[in-house]
Amino acid sequence: MKRSCLSLITDFGMKDGFAGTLKGVILGINPAVQIVDLSHEVPPQDILAGALILRSAVRFFPSGTIHVAVVDPGVGSTRRALLLETPDAFFIGPDNGLLSLAVSAEAVVRIVELTNTQYLLSPRSATFHGRDVFAPAAAHLSLGVQPHQLGSELTDMERLSIPAVEYGQHCMRGCVLYIDQFGNLMTNVTAADLHPFPKERLSVSIATVTIGKIVSSYAAAAIGKPVALINSWGLLEIAVRNGSAAQQLNAQCGCVVSVTLP
Amino acid sequence: MKRSCLSLITDFGMKDGFAGTLKGVILGINPAVQIVDLSHEVPPQDILAGALILRSAVRFFPSGTIHVAVVDPGVGSTRRALLLETPDAFFIGPDNGLLSLAVSAEAVVRIVELTNTQYLLSPRSATFHGRDVFAPAAAHLSLGVQPHQLGSELTDMERLSIPAVEYGQHCMRGCVLYIDQFGNLMTNVTAADLHPFPKERLSVSIATVTIGKIVSSYAAAAIGKPVALINSWGLLEIAVRNGSAAQQLNAQCGCVVSVTLP
Amino acid sequence: MKRSCLSLITDFGMKDGFAGTLKGVILGINPAVQIVDLSHEVPPQDILAGALILRSAVRFFPSGTIHVAVVDPGVGSTRRALLLETPDAFFIGPDNGLLSLAVSAEAVVRIVELTNTQYLLSPRSATFHGRDVFAPAAAHLSLGVQPHQLGSELTDMERLSIPAVEYGQHCMRGCVLYIDQFGNLMTNVTAADLHPFPKERLSVSIATVTIGKIVSSYAAAAIGKPVALINSWGLLEIAVRNGSAAQQLNAQCGCVVSVTLP
Repeated sequence: MKRSCLSLITDFGMKDGFAGTLKGVILGINPAVQIVDLSHEVPPQDILAGALILRSAVRFFPSGTIHVAVVDPGVGSTRRALLLETPDAFFIGPDNGLLSLAVSAEAVVRIVELTNTQYLLSPRSATFHGRDVFAPAAAHLSLGVQPHQLGSELTDMERLSIPAVEYGQHCMRGCVLYIDQFGNLMTNVTAADLHPFPKERLSVSIATVTIGKIVSSYAAAAIGKPVALINSWGLLEIAVRNGSAAQQLNAQCGCVVSVTLP
Repeated sequence: MKRSCLSLITDFGMKDGFAGTLKGVILGINPAVQIVDLSHEVPPQDILAGALILRSAVRFFPSGTIHVAVVDPGVGSTRRALLLETPDAFFIGPDNGLLSLAVSAEAVVRIVELTNTQYLLSPRSATFHGRDVFAPAAAHLSLGVQPHQLGSELTDMERLSIPAVEYGQHCMRGCVLYIDQFGNLMTNVTAADLHPFPKERLSVSIATVTIGKIVSSYAAAAIGKPVALINSWGLLEIAVRNGSAAQQLNAQCGCVVSVTLP
Repeated sequence: MKRSCLSLITDFGMKDGFAGTLKGVILGINPAVQIVDLSHEVPPQDILAGALILRSAVRFFPSGTIHVAVVDPGVGSTRRALLLETPDAFFIGPDNGLLSLAVSAEAVVRIVELTNTQYLLSPRSATFHGRDVFAPAAAHLSLGVQPHQLGSELTDMERLSIPAVEYGQHCMRGCVLYIDQFGNLMTNVTAADLHPFPKERLSVSIATVTIGKIVSSYAAAAIGKPVALINSWGLLEIAVRNGSAAQQLNAQCGCVVSVTLP
C-alpha cells in the first residue's frame, strides 16, 4: 500500500501556527509526502465532532492514506497514543475515541501504541503531542517504517458510541448529531434506517416544527424554507435553503428529530 | 498547456472537512497535481463574492491552472455543471455565474457540460457536487483528459452583471461591491474609470462622509483615518489605516460611493 | 542548504483569496516548491503576534526553509522589504520587527533589501507587497537565486522588544503576551526564567486570582479549572482545562501575571 498522502484533522484552528508546525515536522522527516488539511476547525476538545468528520471523509482518500487526528484534551495524562492499521488506511491519534467512528472493530488489522521514542521528537512536551508524537510518527510511517516498529501492539482501544435511533409505534426518534458551517442539522438517522420505508410517505419534525417529507436536494425547497433530505454523509439532515437551519429553528446538538412512519 | 496546478475556491468553510474531502478525491485520481486553496471562506451562497475573488486571482496563477469553484446553492436542481476553457486556464464549477467574471465572453475557447459520468464519482449525491462532480472532473482533466471527453459542448452560460458606474455632471457614482477581511470597502469603480481624470483633483465620498482625494497607499493616512485609493484588485477602495472601514463607516455592500470630478 | 520548503505567515485571513494568490505567484515561478501555511489568521496588523508565532514555529521546519511573513501595515510607505539569511533558514518580509523575534542578532548572516526589480512583479501595487514583492522574491530564492542578487546589503533592521520580567523580593512579575485559539494565556515568563527555582514551590497568580503551583499538563487540573504550566512554546501559560482561560478569567494581552518565589 503506497503511503504518499497524509491528512490532518485537528482542533488547532488556523491562527497560532500549531497546524503549520505539524507540517514543518512532517516535511523535515519526509519532504515528499503530500499533506492534506482535512480540518483544523474542529470545535475545541469536541472529540465526537472530529470523529464524525473523519468518518465521513476517509473513504474519499487514496488507499494507503495516513490520517493524523488530534483532538486531545487528555494530552499529558495516561491516555495512550495510537496507530491503527486497516486494509485501506492508517490512523494516528490519541486513544480517546477520536479514531473510532472511522474504523469499525472488524476493519482493524492492528493497533499499536506509539511508544518507540526513536520515532518521536525529543524532548517531548506534555502539552503538544500533535507536534512531538503524532506528526513525527506519521512522517516515519510514510517513509516506510513498519507499524510494529513504532511501538507495542494493543488489543483494545476507546470507542465512542453514537446515540441509537429509537423506534415507537409509528415513529422513529433520533437527534441532531452535528451542525455544519451552513447551519445544516445532521442527525443520527442514516439512509439505511430509512431505507425500508417509502420516502415520500415519511414526515420529519424537529421539536414542535414539522418539516415534512424527505426530498432529494436543497433546491426542492423555496429559498428560506426548511427541508429534510439525505445528505452527502448519508445522514438525515434538516436544512434551510440558502439559510441556516440552526439559526432559523434555534436548534443545537442533541435536539430531538422524529420521523413519522406510514 | 501544462495542467499541473489546481486551485479551489468554495464556500465550504474549513470546519467540516468538505474542502479536504475534495482534495482526497483529486489526489486519488492524480496524486501528482499541486492543489492550492484560493478560498474556502466565500460567504455561504454568495456567488458574486466568489466570482469577484476568482476574477482577481486568476491572472496570478501559472498558465494551464485548473480553477475549481463551488458556490452552489442550486446543487441538485437542473443547473448545469460546466468546464470553461480559455487560452490560459480551465474553470470548473456550476453554471450560476460564479465563473463568469473571471472569463470574458471573448476569452472562452470552449464550454463543456460535465455529463460524462465516466469521469464523475458514482454514486453521485444530490447535495455535494463539489466532491462527486467538480473534483473528479478536474482531476481527470489534470491527467490530460481532453475537455470534449468530459461532456457535450454548450454555446452559452449564465453571466453575472456588476452594477455599472453612473455619471452625473460633475460626479461619478458607484457602490460598495465587496468587503474584505480587513473591512476595506471595494467598489465597482475601476482604475480605468478614473484614468481620464487628474487623480489629485478627485474627491471621494461614501454616504454623507467625505473621504477626500485618492492617495497611493494606506500609509498616506494617519492611523485610524479613512482613505481612498486604487487597491490591488484595480478597484477604488475606501479603507481605514490599521482599522476597519466597514465598522467605522458602518458600511455594507451596496452603499453608494461617489467621486466628484473636476 | 536545500531550499525546497516555503512557509507563509500573514494576516490576510482565508476569505479574500489573498493567501491563495501568493501561492499562485510562487508556483508560477517555481512549480516544485513545497508551500506550507503557517498561519493566515494573525490578528490584522498585529506585528507582535505574528513575530511570536513565527519564532515558536521555525525550529520545527526543515533546514533551508524560506519563511515568508506578511503583516504589513506600512505597505506603500518607506519601510523596507527584507531578506534575512541565517545558518538554518531564510526570512522574507517587511522591516517592521515581524521577523526579529525568530532571528537573534547573532544568528543573522546577511540582511538584504529587496530592491532588484528583476525578481519582483511588475507593475507593483502600493497596497499588496505580499503578492508583488515578497512572494516573487521568495520563489526566485527557492530556485537558487543568491541572496545578494535580490538587492543591496543592509547593516541593521527593526527589532521588537518583549517586555522584560521584573523581579521583586519574593516575586517575579510578567504579563500576558499572546492568547491562543483555545483561550490559553501565554506570558513573557520563560522556562529559563523559572529554571532556578523548585517548580513545586512557586505559586502563580493573574490579577487577583491565585492559580497555584506549576503543573506538567492540562490533565493535571479538573475540567473547568485554571492551571499554570510551561507550554509547548517554552512559556509560562495559564489555561483552563477544556475551557478558555481568557474568557473565564476575563484576561487580555498585557494583564499582569506574578509568580511568588520561595
